[in-house]
Amino acid sequence: MKFKVRFLPDHVVAEFVRGTTVLDAASKAGVEIQTTCGGKGTCRKCKVIVEGEAKMAADTKLDKELIEKGYRLACQTYVTGDITVHVPEEARVKEGQILTAHSSFRPKKLEPMTRALELHLPRPGQKDNLGDLERLARALGKEAGQLRPPVDLLRLLPRRLRDLDWKVNALLAADDLGGELLDILPEGSCHLGAALDIGTTTVVLSLVDLEKGDIISTASDYNKQMRLGDDVITRISYAEEGGLEELREQVLQTINQLVLSARANAPELVADCDISALSVAGNTTMIHLFLGLEPKHIRYDPYIPTTNVPPLLRGKETGLVMHPEGLVYCIPGRASFVGGDVTADVIASGMHGRSELALLIDVGTNGEVVLGNQEFLVGCSTSAGPAFEGGEVACGMRAMSGAIEKVCIDEELETQLSVIGDAEPLGVCGSGLIDLLAQMFRCGLVDRKGRIQGGKWPRVRQTEIGPEYVVAFAEKGKVKKREIVIREDDIANLIRTKAALYAGCSVLLKSVDKEFSQLDRVYIAGGFGNYIGIENAILIGLLPDLPRDRFEFIGNGALAGAVQTLLSAEKRFEARQVYDDMTYIELSNSQLFFNEFSSASFLPHTDLERFPSVARQLGKK
Amino acid sequence: MKFKVRFLPDHVVAEFVRGTTVLDAASKAGVEIQTTCGGKGTCRKCKVIVEGEAKMAADTKLDKELIEKGYRLACQTYVTGDITVHVPEEARVKEGQILTAHSSFRPKKLEPMTRALELHLPRPGQKDNLGDLERLARALGKEAGQLRPPVDLLRLLPRRLRDLDWKVNALLAADDLGGELLDILPEGSCHLGAALDIGTTTVVLSLVDLEKGDIISTASDYNKQMRLGDDVITRISYAEEGGLEELREQVLQTINQLVLSARANAPELVADCDISALSVAGNTTMIHLFLGLEPKHIRYDPYIPTTNVPPLLRGKETGLVMHPEGLVYCIPGRASFVGGDVTADVIASGMHGRSELALLIDVGTNGEVVLGNQEFLVGCSTSAGPAFEGGEVACGMRAMSGAIEKVCIDEELETQLSVIGDAEPLGVCGSGLIDLLAQMFRCGLVDRKGRIQGGKWPRVRQTEIGPEYVVAFAEKGKVKKREIVIREDDIANLIRTKAALYAGCSVLLKSVDKEFSQLDRVYIAGGFGNYIGIENAILIGLLPDLPRDRFEFIGNGALAGAVQTLLSAEKRFEARQVYDDMTYIELSNSQLFFNEFSSASFLPHTDLERFPSVARQLGKK
Repeated sequence: MKFKVRFLPDHVVAEFVRGTTVLDAASKAGVEIQTTCGGKGTCRKCKVIVEGEAKMAADTKLDKELIEKGYRLACQTYVTGDITVHVPEEARVKEGQILTAHSSFRPKKLEPMTRALELHLPRPGQKDNLGDLERLARALGKEAGQLRPPVDLLRLLPRRLRDLDWKVNALLAADDLGGELLDILPEGSCHLGAALDIGTTTVVLSLVDLEKGDIISTASDYNKQMRLGDDVITRISYAEEGGLEELREQVLQTINQLVLSARANAPELVADCDISALSVAGNTTMIHLFLGLEPKHIRYDPYIPTTNVPPLLRGKETGLVMHPEGLVYCIPGRASFVGGDVTADVIASGMHGRSELALLIDVGTNGEVVLGNQEFLVGCSTSAGPAFEGGEVACGMRAMSGAIEKVCIDEELETQLSVIGDAEPLGVCGSGLIDLLAQMFRCGLVDRKGRIQGGKWPRVRQTEIGPEYVVAFAEKGKVKKREIVIREDDIANLIRTKAALYAGCSVLLKSVDKEFSQLDRVYIAGGFGNYIGIENAILIGLLPDLPRDRFEFIGNGALAGAVQTLLSAEKRFEARQVYDDMTYIELSNSQLFFNEFSSASFLPHTDLERFPSVARQLGKK
Repeated sequence: MKFKVRFLPDHVVAEFVRGTTVLDAASKAGVEIQTTCGGKGTCRKCKVIVEGEAKMAADTKLDKELIEKGYRLACQTYVTGDITVHVPEEARVKEGQILTAHSSFRPKKLEPMTRALELHLPRPGQKDNLGDLERLARALGKEAGQLRPPVDLLRLLPRRLRDLDWKVNALLAADDLGGELLDILPEGSCHLGAALDIGTTTVVLSLVDLEKGDIISTASDYNKQMRLGDDVITRISYAEEGGLEELREQVLQTINQLVLSARANAPELVADCDISALSVAGNTTMIHLFLGLEPKHIRYDPYIPTTNVPPLLRGKETGLVMHPEGLVYCIPGRASFVGGDVTADVIASGMHGRSELALLIDVGTNGEVVLGNQEFLVGCSTSAGPAFEGGEVACGMRAMSGAIEKVCIDEELETQLSVIGDAEPLGVCGSGLIDLLAQMFRCGLVDRKGRIQGGKWPRVRQTEIGPEYVVAFAEKGKVKKREIVIREDDIANLIRTKAALYAGCSVLLKSVDKEFSQLDRVYIAGGFGNYIGIENAILIGLLPDLPRDRFEFIGNGALAGAVQTLLSAEKRFEARQVYDDMTYIELSNSQLFFNEFSSASFLPHTDLERFPSVARQLGKK
C-alpha cells in the first residue's frame, strides 16, 4: 500500500510505501532538502514540519521545543500514512554563489586535448591504392597502424570518406594523449571541449571553443551527491555501504545537466556539437566517485586511493553527454587529500614556474596548502573540516540566498549584515563567519581563546549551555523564523579550522626552513576564496600577517587549471610534473603539526609577534 | 502457413514458410549443402533430389536428364508444400583434409603478445602511500599513467589487490603493442594465446602456451561462410547486399567453435583459461569480414580495402570467446589481394631474412606469389580462380572424404586412383587434378593445347559437347552414383589457373630482371600445397622446371606466421616490415602479364626450352 506525501510550498504530491523516509521521498519527488551527514540524523539540517501519520525514530536528536512545534528530521521520519511536509526555507538547497570566475588564459601554443584537422585526401587509384585508413594516416603524417581508430569508426570509414567526397575533418587525440583517430566528421564541424571542476559541494563546467581557445559559456550547480553526505568522508562511507553507483549517478546527473545548461546559453552552432574533450579537476574522492572507483581506502590510514593518475578515458566509459570516443582527462593529484583540484590550482597560479616563493591556500571543504616555486613544491591537507562551508557551526550555511556573507560590527557595537540575494538572513556563510569572528574579536566580544565576553553587551545572552551572541534577532509574528546565534562551541570549531590551515602552512614552511616573512606571494583559491576579507582573515589568524599586496585571489583555480590543461599540452605536461615533483607531507601523525596547531588555536595566535598588524590594532584599543 | 521439409538421409524435419529456398531451409535446419556461388544457381554444386511440392525457378541451369531423375538445385527451388529432400553425398560439406601442420617454431626470444608477470607488491604505508595503480606501475618499472587499464579493471583493482594479498599476476600487453595493463589475476594463472588462420575455405586455430611457446592443441573446420559463397568475390557481393553482419557471425561461430574444440583437446588446466592474445592471418577480405569492415571497395578497381593494417583490437570488440580485454592482432597485408595470410607465409618461410633469391607460391583460392630476399620483396595475386579447390571443374571437389587426391596412369593406360578416406570416389580434389592432367598429358591423352585426343583410348568418349575422359566409371546397380569425367572445358580452366600462377611468377621475376633459373628456392604454401606432386606440377607447367631440391613445402604458412607473430615481438616487427617493404604489382591491367599468361596457356608452356626436363620426357616417348 502506498501513501500520499504532499510537499509544501512546492505542492508536489507523490506516493510512497510505508517506511520510506521523508528525506528519500523528497529526493524521489524532486524536492531538495539539505543534509550534510548523509541522512544519519546527526547534522540536523533537514528539519521539516510534518503533518499527518509519520513515525519519528525514537532517538531523534531534536530539541523538544522544536518537536512540539511539529519539526521533524526528514531523514529520521518514516511515512506511515498520508502526510503533508512543509520544507522551510533554511532546509532547502538553493542556487547560491558558486565561483565560476577564473584567471583569463590563452596559452602561447594552442594544443587542445583533441585536434580537428581539415583534410582533402587524394582519391585512390591503381598507382595510389593505399587502404582508406592508411590514406588517412599518410595525410596526417603518421604511419599506418598509428591511428588506432575505434572499430565502430573503422566499420563506417569507407562509406563516410566517399560520402564526404574525401574532404573531411579528422578528429584526433592530441599527440601527448596518444594521437588516436577518434572520428571522421564533415568539413567545418565545430570543435568543442569542456573544463570541469567537480567540487564536493559545487560543480562548475565551462564549454570551450577548442579552435580559438575561448570560453563559450559556463554553468554551475550544487553537486547532487550532497544529499548523500556533505563531506568526502561521509560520501566514502556511503559508497562503502553499497552506494558507490548511486553517488556516481548523482554526479553524472549534475554534470550532464550542466552540459545542457551551458549549451543552452551557447550560440546555436554549438547546441548540436559533441564535446570531444573534457578536462576534469576534482579532489581525489570526487574523481573516484565520478569514475566509479572504490574510494574506501582513501579514508583509512595510510589513505591509499585507487589511483592519483587516472588513465585517459573515452566518453562512452564515463556516462557523460559527450562524444562517445571523446577524451576524458583527469588532472593528476598528489595524494588522497591533495588531489587534482590542487594540482589545477597550482597550474592556474603559475607558482610552479616562477622563482618567487609562493604559498597557495585552497579553502574548501578541506584546506589544502602548497608551498614552493620552480625549484620545489610541498603540499599538505589540513583536514580543516567544513566550518567555513556551513558545517559544524549551528548558524553556518552555504553561500546561497539568505546567507549572511559580510558582517561589520561598528564602534557602537551595531551589527551590520550583508545578505546574499538581499533576502531575510537564514544563516552565515564562510566569509560571513570570518567577518563575524574577526569583528567580535576586534570589539572584545570574544577573547583570544574564543570565549564570549559576558554581561555588558546587548546581543550577548547567557543560556543554560553557555553564552551566545545574537547575530540576527527573530522577527516577531513570523512563526518559522528563528534567531541566528553563535555560541562558544561554534567559535571553537571555527578556531580549530583556521588553526589547522595556519598550522599546515607553518609545517610546510618549516619543512624547507623558511618563514612566513619570506613568502613573496600568497595565492588564495577555492570555492569562497574570492569573498574573504583579507583584513578579517588576518585578524583571526587564518591568513599570515603579511603586506596585503602579497595576497592574490585566483578564484576557482580548479576550473582555471582544467581550462588550461584542456587547451595546452604544455599545461598537461606541467600538471604531470606537479604530480612528479610535489612532496606530500602527511599531517595526521605529525607532532610538529600538532604543536603548530595548538599554538594557532588562539586569536590570532599564541605568538602575537607573528601578527604585528593585529597586535597594533589590539594595542590601539 | 508453414510446410514440413524432411531432409534425408539425416531424418531432420523442420517447418518453413512458402517460398523458402531449399538451400536456406537446409542451412536453418543444420543440414549442410555445398555451394560455391552463394546460391546464385551458377555453380550447380547444390544438387539435391526433391520429392513433393516444390517450385523450381524457370531458368534453372540443370541438365534435363537430371531434372527428370528428380534432381533440383537447392538454391533455385522453393518450398510450396511438404517435401522430402535427399541430399546426396557429393552435395555435402564434409570433414576434409585441412592442413594444420606448420613449420616448428620456437623464437629465439619469447616475447608473446601478452605478458603475465608475477608481482609481490609491498603493502602500502604512510611512508609508501602510492595509489594502487601507481604501486603496480612502479613494480612493473613503468611511470604512473602508463598502464592505462580498462576502467572496469580500475574499479575492481583495490579489492582484487587486497583479496590477493598483493601477490598477483599482472597481465599486460607486450611493449610493442602498447604495454597496457589488461587484467590482474591470481598468482599461477595460466597464460594462453591462440593463432588463427582464417581461410576463405578453412579456418584453423592453434592454442598456444604463451609462457613456454608450445602449441597445446589445434582444431580446424570449414569456414561457415562457405554456404554464403565460395570465393571472396561472392562473399563481398553478399556483404554488399546487406549480408556483412551475417558473414561476420558465420566466421565468429566457426572460430568460437574451434576455440571450444581446441580447449576440449587441451589439458584440464587450460579449459577455464581465457585466451589473452590472438594473432590472426587471413586474406584481406577474410579480415574485413571477421572485423565487420565494409569489403565493397576491395572488389572494384582500384581495389581499396578499409585497411591493410587493422588496429590492435580488444577481445570484447570482436565477439570472440576470449578475455574481453585480450588483444587481437591482425597480421598486416600488402594489398586487397595480397593479404595478411601472404605476409604470414613470408614470415613462416623466412625468405625476407635471407640473401638467397626465393619465390613463394600460395596456391589457395587465389594464387599469391612473392619474390625476394632480405633486400627486396615483390608480390602479386594472380586471381587464379578456384580450379584447384574444386571450383570451375565439373568433377572438382574439395579435399575431403571421397575426393580423388592422387592419379596415376600407367604405361598400359590403366588409371590408378587414391581416394581420401578410402571411400568411393565422388570427385577430384586439387592435387588429384594436377596429377590427372599431368598423367593424361604424359600419356598423350591430351595435347599441349589441352585437347583430349580421341578415338583409340578406352576411357575417352565422344559426346555431343565434345570428348570426355572417364576418370571413374559408374558402378552398376547404384542409382545415385555418377561417373566422374573430365572434359575439355574443365581442362581449359585448369590450364588457365596454372598459366596465371606461372605468369605471375614470370612477371615478378621480370620486374627485377631475374630468371627462373636464378631462384635459389621455391616455397610452396597454402591449403593443399603439401599434397602437390612436384613432378606432375612441373609437367603441366604449374611450377617452374628447377632442380627438385630447390622446392620446399612450408605447409600452412598462414598459421605458422600467426603462431610466430603471437610469440615474438621481432616477428611482429618483421610482419610490419614486410608490409612496408613489399612492392605490390597489380596484374589486372598488365600487358606483360597477359603476354606471359598467353605463353603459359599450353602444356607445359609455349616455350619448351623453359621446361627441359619435361621436354626430355616428351622426347623419350
